[in-house]
Amino acid sequence: MKILTVADIQELIQVIGLENFFKRVITALEEDFGRWSEFILSPRHGTYYPDGVIELMPCADRQHYAFKYVNGYPGNPLKGKLNVVAIGVLSDADSGYPLMISEMTLLTAFRTAATGVLAAKYLAREDAKTLAIIGTGAQAEFQVLAFAGFFPLEEIRFFDSDPQAMVKFSRNLAEQKFRLIPCDSIVEAVRDADIVITATAAKKRQSLFEIEDIAPGAYILAMGGDSPGKTELSAEFLKQVRLVVEYKPQSLVEGEVQQCEADLIYAELWELVCKNKPGRRNNREITLFDSVGFALEDYSILRVVYELAKEYQLGTESDLIPELNDPKNLFGLLNL
Amino acid sequence: MKILTVADIQELIQVIGLENFFKRVITALEEDFGRWSEFILSPRHGTYYPDGVIELMPCADRQHYAFKYVNGYPGNPLKGKLNVVAIGVLSDADSGYPLMISEMTLLTAFRTAATGVLAAKYLAREDAKTLAIIGTGAQAEFQVLAFAGFFPLEEIRFFDSDPQAMVKFSRNLAEQKFRLIPCDSIVEAVRDADIVITATAAKKRQSLFEIEDIAPGAYILAMGGDSPGKTELSAEFLKQVRLVVEYKPQSLVEGEVQQCEADLIYAELWELVCKNKPGRRNNREITLFDSVGFALEDYSILRVVYELAKEYQLGTESDLIPELNDPKNLFGLLNL
Repeated sequence: MKILTVADIQELIQVIGLENFFKRVITALEEDFGRWSEFILSPRHGTYYPDGVIELMPCADRQHYAFKYVNGYPGNPLKGKLNVVAIGVLSDADSGYPLMISEMTLLTAFRTAATGVLAAKYLAREDAKTLAIIGTGAQAEFQVLAFAGFFPLEEIRFFDSDPQAMVKFSRNLAEQKFRLIPCDSIVEAVRDADIVITATAAKKRQSLFEIEDIAPGAYILAMGGDSPGKTELSAEFLKQVRLVVEYKPQSLVEGEVQQCEADLIYAELWELVCKNKPGRRNNREITLFDSVGFALEDYSILRVVYELAKEYQLGTESDLIPELNDPKNLFGLLNL
Repeated sequence: MKILTVADIQELIQVIGLENFFKRVITALEEDFGRWSEFILSPRHGTYYPDGVIELMPCADRQHYAFKYVNGYPGNPLKGKLNVVAIGVLSDADSGYPLMISEMTLLTAFRTAATGVLAAKYLAREDAKTLAIIGTGAQAEFQVLAFAGFFPLEEIRFFDSDPQAMVKFSRNLAEQKFRLIPCDSIVEAVRDADIVITATAAKKRQSLFEIEDIAPGAYILAMGGDSPGKTELSAEFLKQVRLVVEYKPQSLVEGEVQQCEADLIYAELWELVCKNKPGRRNNREITLFDSVGFALEDYSILRVVYELAKEYQLGTESDLIPELNDPKNLFGLLNL
């Protein structure tokens, strides 16, 4: 089986380019959300510790089985570690044999951003020019660049309670063609924005802004609220927007909509992709995609990366699975 | 993080010796079953395909989180592949960071055999001299050698419906000090045996032998029946023995006891280890450990192997997890 490390993913992005990679991932996501009923889906398996959570996220269809191991430890950055790290496995469903283990810390950032753009394709205005992002932590640049590949963005307005995170964000995006506008407050950042991304890390109930702060016709990608007790917007706010989620059984536990009744949710993302329900209705309504991260998204990016790794001969073969001439002679492997 | 391949496990066994390795694993299992209440336990997560199943088996305590990915595809051997292959991960519970990925196909065979011996410590007669094994597939030699390290075995009687599997088994154990007696039938093999291991692979309901075929005082390790619809003994048989399982919620779905009411089960293994309940009561009763394989066993062997890998400097470091000076600057990793 193949092992893809952080260095392999770095090389892949340098070889094919960031915008091209996002295109491949968004295309795969749209294909896979578009054949929703072919998947074996289940809520993720969580193990809860006082300082964080470790999750296993499986997703499968008749061709492949994929799962991700991912942690969420909000206190990790204080110890010089990442809040979220992940590894993923893609397997052949015909034999149950793993085909690839990949780093997924970077891939999680990529697929989360790509999913937000896929939802935006149905929920944002095509001519969106101004994007505001609240929270410029580990995922912020991925988010902005994924949107910049699909919308004619001219201005990025941003705010973080940590000034150093804002400096880092500015530095990383300095070469891009859009204007970067650091803001002194959340309200200053989101005012008049066409796309608003909430990506804060604090594990608590927050209300980052009110409905009056948001321009008519805006698309809100609420991605920071993604576990029980961690939300970024008020229940009152949610009542005033068109709400779309990934998968109700999971979102009602982990998303912004953990504060709501299920009937407040307009649609699951696949229903927009499959054209079962229309997306944005007009240029005035405010739409919101409550992104918590779903196993199907890991499936999609793992299959894309597996295809690309074969195409560009990336990764290393490793004997994590025995190869035997006689499958009943496992003991013979020991050469005792 | 560390990667341990099949070759690393081969080297480990050659360096420390098979018997010594089994001792370390059985000791760890006894420690861990002995602190049962410290673990976060949950039934495994299964994804079912027409040809097999893929499972995720997590188990955690305050120090470590472990899980195993394992398949079960009974038709694989006809395609030159193993019925069961596995990989495992051990993580640090304080940060959620994975410490090690290991091959677990070999380790699963080791831990399954070691768990059967741990149960035998409480359920078999100390002076057991004759062991019968029905089914000489991939796990058979591991089973026999684990028992040979703890019981004064003089004779191994064996039967398999596949003559080639019997030849393989004989060849692999030819150098051992016990006598090997190939048998023409199951009944011939189990008659008068002190320890009986059932390890057949067929996914169906079977009744390998009747209670009259078993000697008084025997210990039966029923390990082949381990998924819904796959059993090796009749419900009638189970009523006539002292039944011990690993974890009722899982065993009642997957084990021999899927045919029984829960109140037929005498104990979970940890209750014997913790001395909450006595094991064997006398030299006449027939005891049975209904082994389905439980995540705690994977936890135990993964922590042993992690300790040994450090002690003997085995395995390879791999950058599956990013290391960052600034944990908020994940994007900086891409060097774009």
